[in-house]
Amino acid sequence: MSHDHVPDALTVLRTRSAVRDFAPVPVDDRTVDLLVEAMLAAPSASNRQAWRFVVVRTHDSVRAVRALAPGVLGVPALVMVACVDGGRIGVGSAPAAQRVTDVARLCVAMAVENLLLAAHALGLGGCPVSSFHTGGLRVLLDLPPEVTPQLVVPLGRPARPLRKSVRRDPDEVIRYGL
Amino acid sequence: MSHDHVPDALTVLRTRSAVRDFAPVPVDDRTVDLLVEAMLAAPSASNRQAWRFVVVRTHDSVRAVRALAPGVLGVPALVMVACVDGGRIGVGSAPAAQRVTDVARLCVAMAVENLLLAAHALGLGGCPVSSFHTGGLRVLLDLPPEVTPQLVVPLGRPARPLRKSVRRDPDEVIRYGL
Repeated sequence: MSHDHVPDALTVLRTRSAVRDFAPVPVDDRTVDLLVEAMLAAPSASNRQAWRFVVVRTHDSVRAVRALAPGVLGVPALVMVACVDGGRIGVGSAPAAQRVTDVARLCVAMAVENLLLAAHALGLGGCPVSSFHTGGLRVLLDLPPEVTPQLVVPLGRPARPLRKSVRRDPDEVIRYGL
Repeated sequence: MSHDHVPDALTVLRTRSAVRDFAPVPVDDRTVDLLVEAMLAAPSASNRQAWRFVVVRTHDSVRAVRALAPGVLGVPALVMVACVDGGRIGVGSAPAAQRVTDVARLCVAMAVENLLLAAHALGLGGCPVSSFHTGGLRVLLDLPPEVTPQLVVPLGRPARPLRKSVRRDPDEVIRYGL
């Protein structure tokens, strides 16, 4: 996979779109490294980095994750399982811990978006999947009880050209001024 | 502000860092349009777009938002208030609605990350702030009860060069394989 011509950031932000069907093409180690580097550069509240990620790449393990994640439709070259690491939340009152956990989930989502943008920049694609069997994934991936999967992200070479999703009129969702 | 030389996406992903102190420089309309365009191109679960955003740009209104958001430290040129729009969640059982809301919050976080990346690509900076007075913001911004602020994002020209945050050893947060 060539990394020589990475498009500019605004183009990548504007043209990313969900990819759910994948060509049967592996993703090489160097590309995985670039994806991970971009992902881990995401914002982290209080720099707590209360996150944990599992990269699933072998054919059998990808199949096993798919069996637990009905939101993964195609057969991706790899799956990133993005988790909140409750071991980094710290102790405190239950409402305070819940609040920190809620914010940690937002950071995991931002890391996943970085991952998806890096994938798109490198000619790959994917989508965030929130429909999966948490307990099953925890057993399959041997995650400790404090680590909770938040998003499952299938990634690979798109099987077909990206389609831009139809969006609401910006005037409905953005307001300028008080 | 020049938009002629937007850096490549991987560089922008890798070099973004939190900006909390801002130079007293306004952000022009064309730049705001580019930021908004990138933000609204974020993934949205089931393409529901259960989000709402308020752009706060005048000096007095930025001050008013700051007074309600202790996490906003410097004086930014603008503030984006990113909200979940409960009016798009749909009706259903309470647990189902909670689940859709939780996922909508992740989409809002991804939109905020797009916003921060676009800002960085254009020589601006910002950071996601989760410490604010929700009820106060709702009154100030005249938000309907179903619209709930999730993140407040100060944005502007960085007052000083970015500092890379110290991150955990990747081996602590990434696992390869099952």
